[in-house]
Amino acid sequence: MNASLAGIIHECIETKQYEHVYGMINGVMGLLESRYIDLLELFSEQEALNQLKHSPAMYLGSCRYKLPDVQDDPQTYERLFHTFEQLQITDFYYIGGNDSMDTVAKLSSYARSISSSIRFIGIPKTIDNDLMGTDHTPGFGSAAKYVATSMLEIAYDSSIYKLNAVTIVEIMGRNAGWLTAASALARTQCNEAPDLIYLPEVPFSTEKFLEDIRQVFRHKKNIIIAVSEGIKNENGDYLDSDSKYTKRDAFGHILHSGTGKVLETLVYQEFKCKVRSIELNVLQRCAMHIASKVDLDESFQIGQAAVQAALSNHTGVMMTFKRKQNYPYQIECTYKDVSEIANLEQRIPVEWINKDHNDITQELYDYLIPLIQGEVTIQYENGIPCYSNISHLRYK
Amino acid sequence: MNASLAGIIHECIETKQYEHVYGMINGVMGLLESRYIDLLELFSEQEALNQLKHSPAMYLGSCRYKLPDVQDDPQTYERLFHTFEQLQITDFYYIGGNDSMDTVAKLSSYARSISSSIRFIGIPKTIDNDLMGTDHTPGFGSAAKYVATSMLEIAYDSSIYKLNAVTIVEIMGRNAGWLTAASALARTQCNEAPDLIYLPEVPFSTEKFLEDIRQVFRHKKNIIIAVSEGIKNENGDYLDSDSKYTKRDAFGHILHSGTGKVLETLVYQEFKCKVRSIELNVLQRCAMHIASKVDLDESFQIGQAAVQAALSNHTGVMMTFKRKQNYPYQIECTYKDVSEIANLEQRIPVEWINKDHNDITQELYDYLIPLIQGEVTIQYENGIPCYSNISHLRYK
Repeated sequence: MNASLAGIIHECIETKQYEHVYGMINGVMGLLESRYIDLLELFSEQEALNQLKHSPAMYLGSCRYKLPDVQDDPQTYERLFHTFEQLQITDFYYIGGNDSMDTVAKLSSYARSISSSIRFIGIPKTIDNDLMGTDHTPGFGSAAKYVATSMLEIAYDSSIYKLNAVTIVEIMGRNAGWLTAASALARTQCNEAPDLIYLPEVPFSTEKFLEDIRQVFRHKKNIIIAVSEGIKNENGDYLDSDSKYTKRDAFGHILHSGTGKVLETLVYQEFKCKVRSIELNVLQRCAMHIASKVDLDESFQIGQAAVQAALSNHTGVMMTFKRKQNYPYQIECTYKDVSEIANLEQRIPVEWINKDHNDITQELYDYLIPLIQGEVTIQYENGIPCYSNISHLRYK
Repeated sequence: MNASLAGIIHECIETKQYEHVYGMINGVMGLLESRYIDLLELFSEQEALNQLKHSPAMYLGSCRYKLPDVQDDPQTYERLFHTFEQLQITDFYYIGGNDSMDTVAKLSSYARSISSSIRFIGIPKTIDNDLMGTDHTPGFGSAAKYVATSMLEIAYDSSIYKLNAVTIVEIMGRNAGWLTAASALARTQCNEAPDLIYLPEVPFSTEKFLEDIRQVFRHKKNIIIAVSEGIKNENGDYLDSDSKYTKRDAFGHILHSGTGKVLETLVYQEFKCKVRSIELNVLQRCAMHIASKVDLDESFQIGQAAVQAALSNHTGVMMTFKRKQNYPYQIECTYKDVSEIANLEQRIPVEWINKDHNDITQELYDYLIPLIQGEVTIQYENGIPCYSNISHLRYK
């Protein structure tokens, strides 16, 4: 997120086409409340911009506000465009997942309908890698590197005892298994883990799951399983759907957090062995200290490309990556009509999942491996990383 | 663990006093089953030794076997000393926590009783920092750095929304709050989190806890809480003591994993706001990629000092750190009679906890901060860390 923002700011400075670059705090919701900051002022120095590129989470905060359809709430659109006019906005860049792309689609469409010349560009960002129209999403590679590294370290940790044990690692990704699949990148000549991988793209059977474990126990004592938070049984129900508190985010998406625990109980009941479930949790999306250099560089690059797209008079587009080749890995930044891809989900093709539905294929491995390459150098102060100051996000 | 092992091997090579250096796999349990490897052979090259120093978990595996008292099981002692004799063992180094130190105490005492000249040296290692007689334990600084860094990144992650929210981070440490206290090291000029810290050294009151949160909500929306897995209420009961599965390890210690979830439910019921609990889990003890350089260097050094202690004819001792000064930080390696300190717990002195029992004092901060300094350079291959091969720990 911040790397793309840094790319946009950098390019805005370089092209000398902008007098002001404002950052909306908490997205359009913040803009409606006149909460924005002057980014050119804050990031006039290269060093500050470089720190921003290497800071986790979202410097400008996130937006939990779903833009209504224009027919349902024309006033909101009028207020937004009135603010754009006051601030003399020519170009609007919005970084985020499907919900942000939906906002870009709606605003650009409205702009056309009122003959506004403001250009709206979406820059994809999600660790889930579930946006359509792009080879992969910025943010995914770093989260994948965190997942692979953590899986490797968990494998080392759980290897120390000589006893039957099952470790279940629950990984984010909602309905898409990309991040869970990335756990396979932990495999080396010295490490076989994960032994089993369960993805939400294929139905999950508890009987098959226990049988799979039984098979692995035949040739090893210590089993490590990667499982997506979003796996569903044959009826399409989440495993933790009967948990007491089904939480939803502001966009109505169900938040899962019980899959690992459900499976832990299941395995314990069946095998009466040591079982531990580990939820990798939010560190998957914020552990900047183990970010992928490829991902950060690409994210910066797609931010730069967004500015070039706007200056070439494009609007209503989402910036995308197109992979030119795997070895050596090469991509280019391009763009697609956002209205055609917003709100669609890109999931793992079933051909990239093995026949037994408990592992990935070599093709998926080859797709993933370039995305986690390279390490970044973070500045440390007093033993902890030195990230951009986000005190403007502190609310009373 | 591995850094101290590397220190021992390095010093054994340097002093040229040893023909063989054997590594027991899974401790004395493995030795009783004749499972050991020749470490001089495996680590003859400096590069391999350096990789070992930078590998997570335990290269030789862990021991879930509690050595019985000699009067209850003299045969086990006889078998062990018979094996020592066969292998012509002169010095026995044992790295671990209180249970390992108990083994060192028992074996050295038995050796004296049979006039054996074998020397027994304990090298402390625990991320919990709960061993008596040493300023701190090897391993703690790296875990503390992981906790502080993760807390910082979680604080960034949870700052992105403008809404009332409570994030509860559950941290390891059994009955000692050292690691939980280390979350305070995440505080910078830009970051206030954690806002509240709950340690197991003082009784935990749920009423007081909810009142503390209410107070913090008066001046900020987004609250982050660090809580030890081992907090107990006024009656001395763990918060998750009524959970269905109370698990114990091989030494009978209760394994906790529900404290964060219990508090999450409590906070949600009281404030009806967004609540998330995060269990840092085993990555606290195995995330080598964010290890503390001070810790790794000291751990190596105490391994070297152990060899020197044995060669100076000491036995029945645990190696210890003595802090000479905080600024600039300086320690020395020394040793103590292991029988006087094994099985005792070093917990945070109550004077180092604030009066409100929801934070630490400056004195504790000053004690902790030197231990997380410095970063290590890990070798990466294919995007993930390159650690020592532990295939000898793979059991069928």
